[in-house]
Amino acid sequence: MAQLDVSTKSKMELVDITAQVQKVVRESGVRSGVCYIFVPHTTAGLVINENWDPSVGQDIVSQLDKLVPRTGHYRHLEGNAPAHIKSSLVGASHFVPVEEGKLVLGTWQGVFLAEFDGPRHRHVVVKVIPD
Amino acid sequence: MAQLDVSTKSKMELVDITAQVQKVVRESGVRSGVCYIFVPHTTAGLVINENWDPSVGQDIVSQLDKLVPRTGHYRHLEGNAPAHIKSSLVGASHFVPVEEGKLVLGTWQGVFLAEFDGPRHRHVVVKVIPD
Amino acid sequence: MAQLDVSTKSKMELVDITAQVQKVVRESGVRSGVCYIFVPHTTAGLVINENWDPSVGQDIVSQLDKLVPRTGHYRHLEGNAPAHIKSSLVGASHFVPVEEGKLVLGTWQGVFLAEFDGPRHRHVVVKVIPD
Repeated sequence: MAQLDVSTKSKMELVDITAQVQKVVRESGVRSGVCYIFVPHTTAGLVINENWDPSVGQDIVSQLDKLVPRTGHYRHLEGNAPAHIKSSLVGASHFVPVEEGKLVLGTWQGVFLAEFDGPRHRHVVVKVIPD
Repeated sequence: MAQLDVSTKSKMELVDITAQVQKVVRESGVRSGVCYIFVPHTTAGLVINENWDPSVGQDIVSQLDKLVPRTGHYRHLEGNAPAHIKSSLVGASHFVPVEEGKLVLGTWQGVFLAEFDGPRHRHVVVKVIPD
Repeated sequence: MAQLDVSTKSKMELVDITAQVQKVVRESGVRSGVCYIFVPHTTAGLVINENWDPSVGQDIVSQLDKLVPRTGHYRHLEGNAPAHIKSSLVGASHFVPVEEGKLVLGTWQGVFLAEFDGPRHRHVVVKVIPD
């Protein structure tokens, strides 16, 4: 099991961690298997989507902020209830298949840590298991 | 493969099943691997989020109810279309890494069955596979 | 690793791929394990939900279209920003447990490719790994 350290810089943003995840896959020596990515946080999550045009990530974050507004009425009194809800919508556990020692991502796909209550230091757990 | 039985008590609620999932991991004897959690229902799902303050779960359920209102216009005529949609948003399949015989959850994280059309008797499928 | 080819016919729709995924499981010879399903696209995703009444899938797609309207203001200028966002909400990576050579799906559950920017030719990556 590897752990990535990710420092986020904004309240909400998608941070591209594809290269770091790919590095874990390479160093694992696994040629064919599955790469598990898990965020052990409750106000952050994971998104697998386009990492070519950064505006896509901004649109994802911005629309989530419209759907779960920061100024709504929430019971949880720490002020980060919307971040918990956004995290539940995108999810904390995702995987990517591995073939020939590489993540089987589509041409435009990347893996992102989704920060919803930053800026903070975050961890991402990565595990690569052979077939 | 293990199966948990969960009785829900409300129309919509998050039921903390972390201890039951951890029990399956312990009894599997697996020290390092992945714990797969799957809900074989179409009007319930899974959420991994804060299980310290119960108001977080209430906020998640309440905001989903705003986004997918029970009184909207839906084609599916059984009255539970919103529950199907909510289930699709949080997802039915999640995993948690396992190390040293324990779920690698963050400090505040727990695993919840998300009930969207209760009260009902639900099942949760849990599988623990070693590296 | 198997790859399914799916041709979608509408801008947005859920395409039932359960039989094709089950075929991959059968041909793998795996009796007990996990079936990984991954969509290598950024404007499509995966949904596991009811495949009995087709109106459920229509409701899911229709409500996502209300939550992430096609006519909103988005930064990404290719016109498919809403499809990227919808894809992030339902997710690109899901799994289904396998027992006795079959997907462990609930009575009403099926696996769908969720098209959000069709019609197109899509791929779905399926991997079956034994315990």
